[in-house]
Amino acid sequence: MNAEIVAIGSELLLGQIVNSNASHISKELSYLGIDVYHHVAVGDNPDRLRDVLKQAAARSDLVICTGGLGPTKDDLTKEILAGLTGRDLVYDEETEQNIIDYYQKWNRVMPENNRKQAMVIKGSEILPNHHGLSCGMVVPVGKSQVMLLPGPPNELIPMFRDFALPYLKTMLNVTEEIESRVLRFFDIGESMLAEKLDDLFEAQTNPTMAPLASMGEVMLRLTVKGEDTEKNRAALDELQDTILDRIGDYFIGIGETPLVRQVVELLQSRKKTVTAAESLTGGLFSSALTSVQGVSSVFPGSIVCYSNQVKETVLSVPEELIQSEGVVSEACARKLAENSRRLFNTDIAISFTGVAGPDELEGHPPGTVFISITDGKRDEVHRLQLAGSRENIQDRTVKYGCFYLRTFLLNE
Amino acid sequence: MNAEIVAIGSELLLGQIVNSNASHISKELSYLGIDVYHHVAVGDNPDRLRDVLKQAAARSDLVICTGGLGPTKDDLTKEILAGLTGRDLVYDEETEQNIIDYYQKWNRVMPENNRKQAMVIKGSEILPNHHGLSCGMVVPVGKSQVMLLPGPPNELIPMFRDFALPYLKTMLNVTEEIESRVLRFFDIGESMLAEKLDDLFEAQTNPTMAPLASMGEVMLRLTVKGEDTEKNRAALDELQDTILDRIGDYFIGIGETPLVRQVVELLQSRKKTVTAAESLTGGLFSSALTSVQGVSSVFPGSIVCYSNQVKETVLSVPEELIQSEGVVSEACARKLAENSRRLFNTDIAISFTGVAGPDELEGHPPGTVFISITDGKRDEVHRLQLAGSRENIQDRTVKYGCFYLRTFLLNE
Repeated sequence: MNAEIVAIGSELLLGQIVNSNASHISKELSYLGIDVYHHVAVGDNPDRLRDVLKQAAARSDLVICTGGLGPTKDDLTKEILAGLTGRDLVYDEETEQNIIDYYQKWNRVMPENNRKQAMVIKGSEILPNHHGLSCGMVVPVGKSQVMLLPGPPNELIPMFRDFALPYLKTMLNVTEEIESRVLRFFDIGESMLAEKLDDLFEAQTNPTMAPLASMGEVMLRLTVKGEDTEKNRAALDELQDTILDRIGDYFIGIGETPLVRQVVELLQSRKKTVTAAESLTGGLFSSALTSVQGVSSVFPGSIVCYSNQVKETVLSVPEELIQSEGVVSEACARKLAENSRRLFNTDIAISFTGVAGPDELEGHPPGTVFISITDGKRDEVHRLQLAGSRENIQDRTVKYGCFYLRTFLLNE
Repeated sequence: MNAEIVAIGSELLLGQIVNSNASHISKELSYLGIDVYHHVAVGDNPDRLRDVLKQAAARSDLVICTGGLGPTKDDLTKEILAGLTGRDLVYDEETEQNIIDYYQKWNRVMPENNRKQAMVIKGSEILPNHHGLSCGMVVPVGKSQVMLLPGPPNELIPMFRDFALPYLKTMLNVTEEIESRVLRFFDIGESMLAEKLDDLFEAQTNPTMAPLASMGEVMLRLTVKGEDTEKNRAALDELQDTILDRIGDYFIGIGETPLVRQVVELLQSRKKTVTAAESLTGGLFSSALTSVQGVSSVFPGSIVCYSNQVKETVLSVPEELIQSEGVVSEACARKLAENSRRLFNTDIAISFTGVAGPDELEGHPPGTVFISITDGKRDEVHRLQLAGSRENIQDRTVKYGCFYLRTFLLNE
């Protein structure tokens, strides 16, 4: 079974909103084993909308439309689809009652055009809307099923979960199971990964493999389909083993858990606290940590030591060290980690110093980075040479910091 | 002239990424007066990709494709379009040199498949990539112009701005000038703004007005078209005056300059330094500041004081104050600002304390926020009650911090 997602609304084509509905629905459909072949967005123009719907119904088993169900003159989806299928629009009493209730509940006068939202395509399956006024519906068009959903994500997401998904599951009468597993890698480029796994990508049928790169992290999603849970799992295990034999050095875990959350969970499970001295990264590492709920048990705080003066006065880095070695140095990184650990009285400290750019610093090009980690007994310093914009260098430095800290904790 | 945007990549159809490129390009095209009629996304499947490209070239004057230019076997865009147009793929020496330089510069071994990225469609116009390895190109297909751009936004956005836009402007031979002006507002909701300007939105023809909301900031883009520069500017001035008469209290400036950059520029022009004590925001304010190039002259550093212990030991907030008033209090906010200013020896300090959630703290619900600003003589505390997720609350608190700090500096 294959599907197509059609988003309707001129605000998409004007670039005023991003089509996040398409990615939400696509992800949900992939879990059901439905292959999405096309996304289309079209404006509130009757002719082009009709053409897009006609083409979608002709080439796709399932067409999911979002938007254009509202009360204004621009909202045409129902009307066009009714015309295409030769069906009438009829009042749906339940939907009408829902609208009347809504206005009574909020003590507001119902605008007359809201009645338009109670019209449904005759003979369609209704999907109720518990978060807004436009109901969804499913209409057969030739051999295709066309599903209409409202555009606002706060209405679409619950309607999809509560009514569209159960409808699709029943319709599909699913016997095959689909299992996915995400492998995460770090410090390996997507092209390097592709090269090392080239023959596996070539030969893939079931399970399939799909890479996805973002800011230094590469994810590989393995997906298997089949009726036997045991066999499915064994196939995933086998493929995973083959992959890790080749690029296991870069492997940082299974699942959707981002690196920073892994670090927080490791700290929690080992009952270790951490602080940071951030020069290059200017608070970005700390804010990454504090984006994780429950981090307060392992992270009391940190210092942003952007200027040399703060490094000297608040973190007691000797002026001579800065003069002889510079702040972009292994020695300075080491001292920052050491002294911030003492100031914040934590088990571990990590420091970041270097050149974010765009200008050079102390003769070092942008992207020169030193990261030091210490627990008072063991310490280490990593030197990196990163490419990219200022923002990019700061972001990736934080990722590397998490990566090294994770390794440090695992090697304890 | 009408356009279509074709995004290529199975990760879109699997819902792993959102098609933000389509909205970015659409917005840019709308400023040029080019109407976008369709967005399409298609996967890394040769047959479907060919069909989509064929249809796009047949129905649209301009087709902008994003993605599928990378080094892996999945990346098919160039090959398919070359096939469709009966053109060959040829080595482009400049692009190849760019790739070789890139790997030499970072002292890394070039994977063999990277050479694939130096292949271009014969006779195409090349758009250089200064932020990655895949160059863009423009190829005529029948009466349509097909433009190929890389998928990663950090490569696409600068390439579009620096090379695609100038190319389109020349191609269009625009005689009408288009002038835009962005007015920025803060602390006013999009619907409140829409209500106050309702009649202006209704009546708009030239200039036009388009609102765009994001995280507490609302931007209003005024766009005028016409052949006379003077008249254009006068029309924008007149509309701006009318708007500011109504909602001038929320106005924070003209242009794309984000709030945080405005703050840094104000600090620089007034030769003031600032520090921060971040509890609730956990480093996010500092990292926002340090994302601005050249901030080091006004921001020596700051402290993330997440735990009570750090508030007491490093920032000398009296234990009794925390016990009697709590950390989520005006008194604590005030003390944090005061003492961090002393510790970092700056002109001004700002502090953030409150509840990011999802749990309550000291009986206060998530979203309770105190922000204090002091310069040693003048101090102020703002209390906010924000809604939303943890991340959302932290983000908007930083925005409010910038807003209050800007006002503080302007009122000096």
